[in-house]
Amino acid sequence: MNTSGNVSRLEKVLRSLSLASEGDCGGLLVTNPVNIRYLTGFSGSAGTLLVGHEAGFLFTDGRYAEQARQQVSEAGLEGKVNVFIGGAKEQAAELKKSAESLMPMASGGELERLNGKPRVAFEAQHLTVAQFESLRSGTLSGVELLPRIGLVEGSRKVKDSSEIEAITAAAAIADQAFRITVEWATPKIGSKEELSEKRFGAWLDYQMRELGAEEPAFETIVAAGPNASMAHHRPGDRPILRNEYVVVDFGAKYRGYRSDMTRTISFGAVGPGEMQDVFDTVLEAQAEGLRAARPGVAASAVDAASRGVIAESSWHDKFTHGTGHGVGLDIHEAPWVSPGVIEELESGEIITVEPGIYLEGKGGVRIEDTLVITDEGNEVLTTSPKQWEID
Amino acid sequence: MNTSGNVSRLEKVLRSLSLASEGDCGGLLVTNPVNIRYLTGFSGSAGTLLVGHEAGFLFTDGRYAEQARQQVSEAGLEGKVNVFIGGAKEQAAELKKSAESLMPMASGGELERLNGKPRVAFEAQHLTVAQFESLRSGTLSGVELLPRIGLVEGSRKVKDSSEIEAITAAAAIADQAFRITVEWATPKIGSKEELSEKRFGAWLDYQMRELGAEEPAFETIVAAGPNASMAHHRPGDRPILRNEYVVVDFGAKYRGYRSDMTRTISFGAVGPGEMQDVFDTVLEAQAEGLRAARPGVAASAVDAASRGVIAESSWHDKFTHGTGHGVGLDIHEAPWVSPGVIEELESGEIITVEPGIYLEGKGGVRIEDTLVITDEGNEVLTTSPKQWEID
Repeated sequence: MNTSGNVSRLEKVLRSLSLASEGDCGGLLVTNPVNIRYLTGFSGSAGTLLVGHEAGFLFTDGRYAEQARQQVSEAGLEGKVNVFIGGAKEQAAELKKSAESLMPMASGGELERLNGKPRVAFEAQHLTVAQFESLRSGTLSGVELLPRIGLVEGSRKVKDSSEIEAITAAAAIADQAFRITVEWATPKIGSKEELSEKRFGAWLDYQMRELGAEEPAFETIVAAGPNASMAHHRPGDRPILRNEYVVVDFGAKYRGYRSDMTRTISFGAVGPGEMQDVFDTVLEAQAEGLRAARPGVAASAVDAASRGVIAESSWHDKFTHGTGHGVGLDIHEAPWVSPGVIEELESGEIITVEPGIYLEGKGGVRIEDTLVITDEGNEVLTTSPKQWEID
Repeated sequence: MNTSGNVSRLEKVLRSLSLASEGDCGGLLVTNPVNIRYLTGFSGSAGTLLVGHEAGFLFTDGRYAEQARQQVSEAGLEGKVNVFIGGAKEQAAELKKSAESLMPMASGGELERLNGKPRVAFEAQHLTVAQFESLRSGTLSGVELLPRIGLVEGSRKVKDSSEIEAITAAAAIADQAFRITVEWATPKIGSKEELSEKRFGAWLDYQMRELGAEEPAFETIVAAGPNASMAHHRPGDRPILRNEYVVVDFGAKYRGYRSDMTRTISFGAVGPGEMQDVFDTVLEAQAEGLRAARPGVAASAVDAASRGVIAESSWHDKFTHGTGHGVGLDIHEAPWVSPGVIEELESGEIITVEPGIYLEGKGGVRIEDTLVITDEGNEVLTTSPKQWEID
């Protein structure tokens, strides 16, 4: 495991916290399970993490006792993050004690408690109003609670080498599973046996698992023919036919990290006509997006590069979503590749580029890659061919 | 589709809202996607629902345009729930307009706006602090926002016939997939080929999909030998061996509804000794829990029935979680079958009974069924045998 990785992640979050709180804050209460996993390695579905300047405290229940201790130790955090196991009441009491013991890191670097009341930041995008009220008036009534946004997510944007490795592996699993699935599907499509969107998706997901994925990165989309006009269509019983476009949007999860890829394929040629022109337009739009993605450009510039191609086509109003998003422990995370995002891309960020055109009643085309921003530009991690007419 | 079902669900939520707000509240803002699905049929991952006394308003983005209209219509809500499609800004503007137009249902039944400012309740357990602040100071600054807890979840506890049907079908899929998977696994275990926890889980999940499940109800747990001491173990590369217990905890999702079942099986006999005694104790504890589950008894009485058997054994401190939980659109939902829950069970509720004993370094046993509370007692929906020693 990437020992030094987790220690430096905790340090990075504490630095962001100091900046965001002018130094007088004792710690950060982390309640988003994905952020807890990022910081400590603990992947259970229930837990609370309090990150202080001198120590961290992880609270979870008996179901996760052994797992929590094991994962925190594998992350190299033994002695740095204390694991507390107990029921809801015991966890609350211990959280109160830990929070009240935190010493603020004063701006000058000296440890002293300001105003006599300890201050703890919390994740305002993840704590619900009900949870906040319960902490404020109960468990942490002796603590001043400061809402903060995106402190851990900010750290998560630029991936370290172990994260890039995991996403590269996830993308490779997805590529290989896709090839196997297309080969398996080919003789079935147009035959008496038929193959539904659902069964295509189920086999693809199973192949990813067989190749080492923990699970699909998200609910696989298989949208055949007119169904592809719905960007987020759920696979159903409709058979995949020959000579029509099928949009397949899927990814693998590996070591907690996700890949994301869309291919629009056809079994047998799609005749010349509107849908083929749509395909060519999306293919060009996607290529322009890829060309634009490099460090120092605004995320919106990548969006604009893809969007510009479609804007000049007959389908200028049929690209109804953003061009892409960051990918990591979450399938959708910062940075957002959308209009208006002036934030500049950085080396080590992993994003998708996925323009699409959707024509109600007719169908749709989307093409998507996952890529890592490099010092020189970018490297595409999803390598399946984009122009597959399978026969 | 169950047309009248969705209309009556909306009415039920409005009645709860009236009770919870003394009649002077114009509507409920629903932000939990599962609650939106329950009320409107819309199953997209992004959306906001405003339920007013005269009409409902569903807001989502372009990716879900066709799907939202289609699902709302299939739920029989055309003309009752207005679907608005737009970007984030357009949705906010329309939400503001809709919320400000809501007329409160005054306690006396008369429609009049109290205090000049419309009042809208929101789901305090689902809205984050950041979302709330953004609504309060921005989009809905002209509206008084009232935190409410569990209004929709309360309605969801007692299932209607279409819901019981879906969960029964999900349980049947899981039963059949389990039988197929055990048969498939038997010749592999103890052979040169070997079978890891992961591959067992992948095949089980695939079989559920082939039998019609939309996806697994949650991340399938396969825990072999000592790994079973972790109640929520993730399947790994460890091969399943002969003559050891394997805990398999899984379910199917069908029409959005989930089943939940755990079986502890062995390929070849587990010799007499501690683990076999643990098995017998858990089996008895589970049977006692099932016996206790009927309308009118406190949920905690079912927990006590299971817990009592383990409390009298040598492993009294090794049952480290609640006895069960409600199952429906969520895998864990109300009612909670835990100590201290005085709430009485009602006919139509669907719960699990799943005691377990976990011995660090040695292994564990858990046995779980999903059951529906009936007028007479209960009916178990998960029917796989509990004493399988496979050879």
